[in-house]
Formats: sequence, C-alpha cells, structure tokens
Amino acid sequence: MIKTDILIIGAGPTGLFAVFEAGLLKLKCHIIDALPQPGGQLTELYPKKPIFDIPGFPEVLAGDLIHNLMEQIKQFQPGFTLGEQAQTIEKQEDGTFIVTTDKGTQHHCNSIAIAGGLGSFEPRKPIIEDLEFYEDKGVEYFVKDPERYRGKRVVIAGGGDSALDWSIFLANVASEVTLIHRRNEFRGALDSVEKVQELKYQGKIRLITPAEVVGLNGAERLESIDIDENGAHRKLETDFLIPLFGLTPKLGPIANWGLEIEKNAIKVNNALDYQTNVEGIYAIGDVNTYPGKLKLILCGFHEATLMCQSVYQRMNPGKKYVLKYTTVSGIDGFDGTRKEAEKAVVKSID
Amino acid sequence: MIKTDILIIGAGPTGLFAVFEAGLLKLKCHIIDALPQPGGQLTELYPKKPIFDIPGFPEVLAGDLIHNLMEQIKQFQPGFTLGEQAQTIEKQEDGTFIVTTDKGTQHHCNSIAIAGGLGSFEPRKPIIEDLEFYEDKGVEYFVKDPERYRGKRVVIAGGGDSALDWSIFLANVASEVTLIHRRNEFRGALDSVEKVQELKYQGKIRLITPAEVVGLNGAERLESIDIDENGAHRKLETDFLIPLFGLTPKLGPIANWGLEIEKNAIKVNNALDYQTNVEGIYAIGDVNTYPGKLKLILCGFHEATLMCQSVYQRMNPGKKYVLKYTTVSGIDGFDGTRKEAEKAVVKSID
Repeated sequence: MIKTDILIIGAGPTGLFAVFEAGLLKLKCHIIDALPQPGGQLTELYPKKPIFDIPGFPEVLAGDLIHNLMEQIKQFQPGFTLGEQAQTIEKQEDGTFIVTTDKGTQHHCNSIAIAGGLGSFEPRKPIIEDLEFYEDKGVEYFVKDPERYRGKRVVIAGGGDSALDWSIFLANVASEVTLIHRRNEFRGALDSVEKVQELKYQGKIRLITPAEVVGLNGAERLESIDIDENGAHRKLETDFLIPLFGLTPKLGPIANWGLEIEKNAIKVNNALDYQTNVEGIYAIGDVNTYPGKLKLILCGFHEATLMCQSVYQRMNPGKKYVLKYTTVSGIDGFDGTRKEAEKAVVKSID
Repeated sequence: MIKTDILIIGAGPTGLFAVFEAGLLKLKCHIIDALPQPGGQLTELYPKKPIFDIPGFPEVLAGDLIHNLMEQIKQFQPGFTLGEQAQTIEKQEDGTFIVTTDKGTQHHCNSIAIAGGLGSFEPRKPIIEDLEFYEDKGVEYFVKDPERYRGKRVVIAGGGDSALDWSIFLANVASEVTLIHRRNEFRGALDSVEKVQELKYQGKIRLITPAEVVGLNGAERLESIDIDENGAHRKLETDFLIPLFGLTPKLGPIANWGLEIEKNAIKVNNALDYQTNVEGIYAIGDVNTYPGKLKLILCGFHEATLMCQSVYQRMNPGKKYVLKYTTVSGIDGFDGTRKEAEKAVVKSID
C-alpha cells in the first residue's frame, strides 16, 4: 500500500504544481495518471506547441513547461503511479481514503486532489475484429517504453503527429517500422512530415497508403495483420501494432465517486478551498467548475495552492500557518537539498 | 485626459499581467504607479533576488520576472503614469470613473483594478530641518532618471543595497559621488559592497563614514549639506542629496475611496470576480483580502484573469464570451503583431 498525505489524480500542470505547494507545507504527494508519463495533455497532445498565457512566459513550449514543473517539484520527491487509472475509493472511519487503480495498486492518503483535466485520456480504438483479445499481446495504444520495441517489427497506424513522431523515433529502435494510413496525406508539423519522407527514402520506414488494418492474426499473441490497401488484401507479419488515432478525454470512474457533477466537471467551493461536496476530496484545474470558472492553467496553479492550505488545516487542526516567502525563507526539499537567496553581507569598506 | 478601459493602480506583477488578460479580451489598460518604473517591490526592493514559487520557474530573479511580464504584455501597448500616486476618484453618472493623481493627471476609465500590493511605497525620510523645502530642489528619494545627474555632484545617504547600487551606477554618470553612512559597515550583496570598495580605491566614490547629514543649505535650492562626521562638523557642496533609507508601504489615498477595508487590505468577492463593494472597482493581488487569501504572486495572476472577464461582461452586457486558447487561436496584439503556434500541414508523402 502506497501511503501519502495528498493523493493527486492527474499529472498535468495543475497536479504537478500542487506537489510544490504541498511541499512548502511539508506535505507529501503521490500522483496517479492513466498516461504513461507526467504532463497530461501538454506532453501527450501538444508537447512542441507554444503556450502564450502562462504568466511570466511570453512563450513556452508545452513540453518545456512540464519539464520546468518537474524540475521545480523535484525537491519534494513526489511518487508516481503511471499508466493506471484511479478506479475505486473507500473512505475510512478516520476520514482518510484508500484509492485503488484499475491494475489493483492501492493508495492510502489523508486527502485527495482530483486534477484530472478534461478527464483521463482514452485511446480512440479502430474497429477491428478481436482487437480486445490482442491488447497487451501485441496491440498497444501508447508507447510507454520505446525499449520494449528494440529489435522488434512494429506497425504504426494513423496519420497525425503521434503516428509521425513515433514512426520517426522507433525507426532507430525497432528492426522494422511500417506506417499505415488511410490517406496519402499526413497531418502534422511540417518537419515531422519531411522527416518521415526522408526516412522512407532511406528505407527506415515502410509506408503503406492509402490502407487500413482490417484483421489481426495469431494464436497466443499478435503474429500478423491483414491490410486492405486500396481494395487489395495482403498480410504483414509483425510483433506489434500501435494504432494512434487520437485520445478522447473521459471523466471515467471518478464520475461514480459521489461527487456533485455539473456539465462533466466537478463542483467545488471556490469561495474557500476548492473542496468538493465530499470532505477531504478537492478538485483543481480544468476538472472543476464554479461560477466564473476559466479552464486555464494559471487558474489551476492558484486552486492547487489554496487546496494545499486547506489540507494543511485538515491535517493540523487549529494550527496557525504563517505564510513564508520563498525568497526570504528559502526552500528545504524532502531530499535534503536547500534552495535560498544569497544572503546580504554586513561588511565594512576601508 | 487619459482614456482607457481598465485603469490599473499598481505596476507590480499582478497589475502587469492584468494587461495581458485584458488584451486577450480586446480591453485596453493604463497603469498608474507611485514608483518611477514598473515592477513594484520586485524592481524597487529585490530585483536581483530569486523567487522560487512562480509556477514553471524553478528559480527566477524578481527583476527577470518583471522583464518577462513587460515583454509578454508589450503587444497590448499599456499606457503608464509613473511616479504619481492615484489620489481622488469620481464616479460618473454613466458608471465610469475619473481618477486624478497627486500631480493632477486625469484618467477616465470604465473600470478600476487596484493592484496596489502592500500599498504605495513611500520613502523613509531622515530627520533634517527644512528637508521638505528642498524636496525636488536637490533632495530626491528615488533615482527616476539617472541622466538628471550627469555631470552633477551627488551625495547618497544610506547603507543598504539601494545606496550601494546607485552609488556604483552614478559613479560613471555624476561628476562626483559621495556616499555617507552612519556606520563603517554596509549591508548588501557581497559583490555590491566589493564594487563600492573598488570604486573608492579608484577615486570614483568618496566615502564618509561614520557620518550623518545634519543640515541643508541654499537659498533657492540645495547648494551644500552639513555633515556630522563622528562628532566633527563639516560642510560639503553638492547639487543633489539622495537619502536612501528604505521604503514603507502605505495604502495611501485609496483608503478614502469608500471601499471596505479589513486589516489594511481591501475586501473583495472571491466567490466571483474580485470586485470590491463599489461596482466597477476591483482589487487584485496582495492588496485584497478574502477568506483563505494568500499573498502570493501566483494568486494575483488568477485574480487578475477573473477580474478581466468581469470587466468584459460589464462592458459587453449579455454578450457570451467563449474562452479561446492562445495555443489554438494565437494572439493579436494592439500593435498589429500576431503570435501563433506553427500550423500543422497536410502533406502527402511520396
């Protein structure tokens, strides 16, 4: 059982920054996310796109913002349960919670901060017979660990950024990369399209277009796929099929946790601490709603900060918290490191 | 008369960021600040100190944060009335406001956002007879424009960072720089103290310590000062005396605007839009208070953003605003520039 003070559901920018504010209050955090890496949609959907409305950044790439946040929270050593979805919640008699994921991992925490963004991202699946049977037996919807594909034959299906970028990346990892798309045209960053073109010329990526995967074969696991290439059928041996047809956000199991939901978002008390109707469960960032709510990252940062103060009061009833400024007091990490401003000296001049 | 949509009082980080969020809504802003430059206490008190709790910045110097914010709002061409203090407010029949500064500058606006931080910074003045008479006639408490001192004789009094840093800066501008402090020891950044030491050796800064300025002379304007140097009296001819003994924040004239004040801060409706008890006047950042208020820059950013939405509704009653993401929609500046993410291409691969 993983134990923590605040269990954060969602590793997007709001959830990550909560770790920092909690750390300043000496509260420990653990984060669950259905995606295989931190960053939420910023990492998964648009890591190379600029954001212009993060205060203090005239422009920052989404991936860089996440990188910076990971660096900022490093001192507070957050734990991560990645690639798993928070499924069930049990409130204990003492007011704490046990949260279990779809893979059975259990977390025991004082408070829960749902920072689920638009929901957990679920892959759009192609309609192919027996698809579910081959899931995790050759069919995968995320590239969690590229090393898994080293020396293997991989087929990627899709025509957008993810399909292009993973084809490029795996071209130097897999023994064979085939990219299948139902059109000749790909939609993505210009340099990604050009890079795939180049790798095709070099024989490092095999392109089959316009084409669709229409069948899967193999007794125990995936051994080959059937392809409809403009009406002509052919079979292709492969170890993996990775369909990358985009992600759809779904609120998922959280919707059944007894929280007040309005228009697919969780209602919170914005006049105080962004707590839901269940004491000890908060919702911060794009996943919550209240009068005047704006789904902006900068609002999530504020909500995360006030939520942490509320958890502090919950865990230290009656204790008066005096706000300390990081510039004045510095930061003591849980890892033993300390950040602080250079101290002024008192020195005579001869 | 200066005309604007939102008149922002206070050019600290919260006031500056409000310009950006207003600009996204096509609202124009003008900022009044008592200090001679934007940035509030970040620029005036600790420009070279690191801040660790701005989301996305593991560490950022206060001066750099302000620089970044100025860059971020540049596209929206904010106006500035600097070195003046907002003094009186008159609500017009149509619900708009006229705000007049202590120097008589008038501003006509739809809404007011008070982003006054801890208050306007007023200099701590030394106790010297006739000091007020010589103010603006040789005695100055801020270095507004260093060029003013070119080729002139300047005496700086004080022993902290400001006194050290301005002595260093003016050593290459003024014809003569004298630094007077009541102790031999100075309190500041190590490299500032060392730099003053070096400039003293080079004859570019004259040091008189331990000493105090005890008298001012001159018929029309300052001509010389009397110095008590460890009990011995001497006279020193000078064009300027700049006492730099620190600043004290004072809420100032705003306290008389009929706003609900609690513990030196302005009460606002945090459940909606950070509006005060006077319709059309908002308070954002450290100057406001509400249940759970934290005086953090990141909270000011959020408050500024929601305030702008409320002003938009005030100016466009009944109009439905649809939030646009800067990554998706880009930003059109009032200066004709456009920022946007690189568009995806649709391109075939041969």
